[in-house]
Amino acid sequence: MNLAGVFAPVPTPFDDQDRVDTRRLAAALRKWAARPISGFVVLGSNGEAVLMDDDESERAIAAAREAVPRDRLFIVGTGRESTQAAIRASRRAAEHGADAVLVRTPGFFKNQMTTDAFVRHYTAVADESIVPVLLYNFTALTGVNLLPAAVSRLGEHPNIIGMKESGGDVAQIAELVNGTPAGFGVLAGTTATFYAALCVGAVGGILALACAVPEACVRLFTATREGRHDEARAIQRQLAPLAKLLGPTFGVPGLKAALNVLGYDVGLPRPPLAPLPETAVKTLRDALAQFEEIPA
Amino acid sequence: MNLAGVFAPVPTPFDDQDRVDTRRLAAALRKWAARPISGFVVLGSNGEAVLMDDDESERAIAAAREAVPRDRLFIVGTGRESTQAAIRASRRAAEHGADAVLVRTPGFFKNQMTTDAFVRHYTAVADESIVPVLLYNFTALTGVNLLPAAVSRLGEHPNIIGMKESGGDVAQIAELVNGTPAGFGVLAGTTATFYAALCVGAVGGILALACAVPEACVRLFTATREGRHDEARAIQRQLAPLAKLLGPTFGVPGLKAALNVLGYDVGLPRPPLAPLPETAVKTLRDALAQFEEIPA
Amino acid sequence: MNLAGVFAPVPTPFDDQDRVDTRRLAAALRKWAARPISGFVVLGSNGEAVLMDDDESERAIAAAREAVPRDRLFIVGTGRESTQAAIRASRRAAEHGADAVLVRTPGFFKNQMTTDAFVRHYTAVADESIVPVLLYNFTALTGVNLLPAAVSRLGEHPNIIGMKESGGDVAQIAELVNGTPAGFGVLAGTTATFYAALCVGAVGGILALACAVPEACVRLFTATREGRHDEARAIQRQLAPLAKLLGPTFGVPGLKAALNVLGYDVGLPRPPLAPLPETAVKTLRDALAQFEEIPA
Amino acid sequence: MNLAGVFAPVPTPFDDQDRVDTRRLAAALRKWAARPISGFVVLGSNGEAVLMDDDESERAIAAAREAVPRDRLFIVGTGRESTQAAIRASRRAAEHGADAVLVRTPGFFKNQMTTDAFVRHYTAVADESIVPVLLYNFTALTGVNLLPAAVSRLGEHPNIIGMKESGGDVAQIAELVNGTPAGFGVLAGTTATFYAALCVGAVGGILALACAVPEACVRLFTATREGRHDEARAIQRQLAPLAKLLGPTFGVPGLKAALNVLGYDVGLPRPPLAPLPETAVKTLRDALAQFEEIPA
Repeated sequence: MNLAGVFAPVPTPFDDQDRVDTRRLAAALRKWAARPISGFVVLGSNGEAVLMDDDESERAIAAAREAVPRDRLFIVGTGRESTQAAIRASRRAAEHGADAVLVRTPGFFKNQMTTDAFVRHYTAVADESIVPVLLYNFTALTGVNLLPAAVSRLGEHPNIIGMKESGGDVAQIAELVNGTPAGFGVLAGTTATFYAALCVGAVGGILALACAVPEACVRLFTATREGRHDEARAIQRQLAPLAKLLGPTFGVPGLKAALNVLGYDVGLPRPPLAPLPETAVKTLRDALAQFEEIPA
Repeated sequence: MNLAGVFAPVPTPFDDQDRVDTRRLAAALRKWAARPISGFVVLGSNGEAVLMDDDESERAIAAAREAVPRDRLFIVGTGRESTQAAIRASRRAAEHGADAVLVRTPGFFKNQMTTDAFVRHYTAVADESIVPVLLYNFTALTGVNLLPAAVSRLGEHPNIIGMKESGGDVAQIAELVNGTPAGFGVLAGTTATFYAALCVGAVGGILALACAVPEACVRLFTATREGRHDEARAIQRQLAPLAKLLGPTFGVPGLKAALNVLGYDVGLPRPPLAPLPETAVKTLRDALAQFEEIPA
Repeated sequence: MNLAGVFAPVPTPFDDQDRVDTRRLAAALRKWAARPISGFVVLGSNGEAVLMDDDESERAIAAAREAVPRDRLFIVGTGRESTQAAIRASRRAAEHGADAVLVRTPGFFKNQMTTDAFVRHYTAVADESIVPVLLYNFTALTGVNLLPAAVSRLGEHPNIIGMKESGGDVAQIAELVNGTPAGFGVLAGTTATFYAALCVGAVGGILALACAVPEACVRLFTATREGRHDEARAIQRQLAPLAKLLGPTFGVPGLKAALNVLGYDVGLPRPPLAPLPETAVKTLRDALAQFEEIPA
Repeated sequence: MNLAGVFAPVPTPFDDQDRVDTRRLAAALRKWAARPISGFVVLGSNGEAVLMDDDESERAIAAAREAVPRDRLFIVGTGRESTQAAIRASRRAAEHGADAVLVRTPGFFKNQMTTDAFVRHYTAVADESIVPVLLYNFTALTGVNLLPAAVSRLGEHPNIIGMKESGGDVAQIAELVNGTPAGFGVLAGTTATFYAALCVGAVGGILALACAVPEACVRLFTATREGRHDEARAIQRQLAPLAKLLGPTFGVPGLKAALNVLGYDVGLPRPPLAPLPETAVKTLRDALAQFEEIPA
């Protein structure tokens, strides 16, 4: 399984009654399928997975599977606080056609989430999962850090093929790359440090911005890979303001608003998330304007 | 509804196949019912609620309801990341006999959890809940802080009767007390500052230690209330080492181990939590020894 | 030496040429001497000591010594990053008449400031100091924490008589009290938790608010001491908004502005500190108004 | 003034009586002068400047000036908490022959150190300094962050020519580079992210490791500059373990111990810093062994 490239972590549309809208999810994925994206992640953090129950999740997976072409990777987020729940979600995702599962660290019982606990958790999931497992560390949201020492041990597992590291600590990304086997792919989760992450050995990225401005993300990836560093640095610089807005500042409401501006029709976030205020949408629209991706 | 007093947030026993063991939950509650505890919380943080699915939760609630005497408050934890899920869990808890629900803050999308977002979330839950609602702030685990400014607004809602504040920031507890109506009860969630919280106006506490050493907790509560501050301070001092162990240090595995030492038979925690190592159990046993609650 | 009571950490006036204005320092201290304050701290954090050189410090000490009545404790801040510098400053302070020295933790080399390092530092200072030493922990400013484990060891030193703990963690204050000999006095440094700190055993406080509203602080102290907890709690509640403004929000510029409003003529802070903006002065004036300490 | 390249922030030797040992400082600098280092920083964080008084500082500057060849940049750390003190120290450094001054942010009064306060502080220093000024941000030690917004404004000052950013946040380094004029040089202060910092536009580094293994640091710099990214990445990977040890883990005591191993004879750190324990020296020696810089 080739993890090199740019992956889009897609949001989940909800309808007017706050139900998962599988039709709009599929329609949006078909639009994205026309772009040079290497694969898709559904039910990640950006997919509001933590706001959905298991039935909703399965319907979203099934609908997405239909829409994602077979030549792209189809990755499903299946992180749960309980090890058994993560195993069950991973198996169900595979049954619905996932190519791989992306398993966010449990993080509720912070003091207990030691390296040993992470190794036990992921080993159990990888042992039971039908499809390959990607680790997923997102310290800013979970409050726990899946350290290189744990990843190094987990990278030996035959069913763990890589990870998404959403933090911007490039030294940690370098350490993850250096501490794992050649076939283990480290994917960046932060656009603000995407170019630097590629420099130190990340094989690609799962980036909210890949939903909004996929061409720019892919050009950055390709330029770096082909040694055109000045070009890569220039694209990174162009992406920086948008990365800030779609990352910590506006979050999922911002991503959905940006995608609606771009014609993807992904609707509003689910409460307690609130729609992005109009002034913020205006800011986003201005930041997007320079990318010439806004439909006429 | 009288929130004054000491409440026990009870753990959930699992059996050898990692299934919820309702029989042992009921048995443990019947033992606790013989102690001077004002009420019980099931499915709180200490109840490993985040590791359980909805079906398991309902069976645990039903079993607990049977075992808790009607003259004690029976509170059920129903916090969820999604507002609708929190509403549904709260309604189901009431249908299974909860006297009140304890609703932990959503905390996954940290940057979006503003005061306005919390007010919308809790107002929606309180509007729909059949039984009174207690707010629940546990910043160390959630990474978000339900500030006095939000609580002050929520304290006006007729169906929100109080809150559990698990942080040890006594200035914040004082501000919560001072910023809410007289009938709104602030309950401390940290034994290490229980006496100080009572001094500044908390009406009681929901304390892991109330499961292990209820008499000491109740004596501390009563001494403070009756103005015997030297006695209260002495009990607080006696509780301090155990509070440290059962709080941040050993967590839920520690609480379960302590209760097993004390004869409550609550089993082991659910993965990714691991049983407390034997050396730590020894430390706990020593700390418990001075309380003369260990059965012969 | 009796550390019980309320102490005022006084600011250092500078003149129009940004020179230490010893005349105005002495005048302000004489005004304070008419209030029921147990003693004074010069060259503490509020004294902008880190912005002054050694010569300026000595002139300020000498001038203050003249103005402080002999029946009040006269404490001088002598914390330095280097152990030898702290020793020299402590000896000079004593030569200029200090009754005791208040030695803030070094904090620049954070990772190296272990319990052992603190014990070595303070032991060396206490061995060499002519007058008794008070430890001083202010984690919010220094980024290091002088833990109870270190204080417990240092409390055995015959020339270390107490400490100022500026943090609001009441559990830590309790632990400091419980882990030190009876004669060791723990002084609170945060007004927001002054009452709670007294409840758990602090013998008094060194409080910015004691410069501005000494009577209220002293009444809170006395009420707690005499078991009138309802009264103490009411005063604490009255002090809370002002404590917030003069603490983290407005800092030294706020304290100086408040004291100028109250007629103490302490001038402006030294750059890089800037004078409090007029709108903030207005906020302060309103908060002070209810205390009836503003001169007609 | 050309800031491109690798700079060594040298430690200050003290003699057996804890006095500044200018002779050994000069001798060490003469040894370093034989290596391909672009310049030297004395009295930086690694120089234990915060543990030295003004007289000692001036003697160290004068001795270093003698030893540093005129074809290398000679930079002196002159950061102080007070703006006036920073100005005075900067002027004195220039009088003793500094080519430029490196001015660490004040950081004691954290809440007051706003962007405006930093701009005022550095503008005043740059206005008065005889030689060019380098800004210096070291959040891990100071607890304050000199944000790109402030640097962008300060970069317009004709006497501010660059900055040292000691944090490992590569996105912030990119933002600093992108927000300042072409002639403004951003220097990395963390070896762990040196390669990534160069990728995003840093012109060089002031690196503790440049004292210990200058050739490797310079090869990394040159390889990146000349587009040999695979080689650069390999050197970065080789430097990583040592960067960890000499950075946060062992600090100044570690740097001095490493340099003593390497034959530089820089003595022991000043209290409260303690000499590195023997076991840690052994760890360092092993990490250094692969660099073949240990003298026979």
